[in-house]
Amino acid sequence: MREAIALSKQSVERGGGPFGAVIVKEGRIIARGSNSVTLLNDPTAHAEVTAIRAACSAVGAFKLDGCELYTSCEPCPMCLGAAYWAGIARIYYGNTKSDAAEIGFDDSFIYDEIALVPAERRVPAVEMLRDEALAAFRMWSDKEDKVEY
Amino acid sequence: MREAIALSKQSVERGGGPFGAVIVKEGRIIARGSNSVTLLNDPTAHAEVTAIRAACSAVGAFKLDGCELYTSCEPCPMCLGAAYWAGIARIYYGNTKSDAAEIGFDDSFIYDEIALVPAERRVPAVEMLRDEALAAFRMWSDKEDKVEY
Repeated sequence: MREAIALSKQSVERGGGPFGAVIVKEGRIIARGSNSVTLLNDPTAHAEVTAIRAACSAVGAFKLDGCELYTSCEPCPMCLGAAYWAGIARIYYGNTKSDAAEIGFDDSFIYDEIALVPAERRVPAVEMLRDEALAAFRMWSDKEDKVEY
Repeated sequence: MREAIALSKQSVERGGGPFGAVIVKEGRIIARGSNSVTLLNDPTAHAEVTAIRAACSAVGAFKLDGCELYTSCEPCPMCLGAAYWAGIARIYYGNTKSDAAEIGFDDSFIYDEIALVPAERRVPAVEMLRDEALAAFRMWSDKEDKVEY
């Protein structure tokens, strides 16, 4: 955690957001990340996503089963989702999402929005052409040599 | 939406997951994406995240204010979070998250998990060293030339 916190401070110094994260496998740090949204023009470049992508690259796999995520701040829903998809086993965080909201990063708002039904969110999500979209899912189900995950 | 669906089918054919997405600005497609998780060893390479990153790269900004996301499937929490951070105005989706669960992509499970308090999730999230972590947030608050977002 102290390494994640050190990365969060370095990030502020170099012009990024105040967040850092590391991925730990069997007691060793295998990847690091810090918030580079404004530096890279990438809204998905949160510290946790950046660390997860770096760790997957390091191990040459799209899963990080059994790895732990240490992040200087409680993950937002995007980063939490990324941790689930990556198969992270356990998360440790420093600052809370309320601490983040107080300095202008409103993860709490996104947590509230996700709990609403799609059409009632501030960013409404509307279903269309479901019958046509299902065709790709049928192709997937019928495909015998697919790589599942 | 038909372009997003076409991308989802092409993705199955080339060995990726059955998902496609496009970003639309003022009625024109500015970026495309498809699920490349297994092809790139990147668990964050969902169609929507890939399209958002490509769109930000195309416009040279970390926000896509006023843009719309058309995706062949209802976004998972990771992609929904990415859409909020990117400032997407509206989302259209084809398949539902239940359709996705039926072919083995259990976004619904992640929606349920996110609604739980951190320590009670299947991937538990535990707070530690908050006092030390807060130092980076104070640095951020005190920084006068920061790029906010």
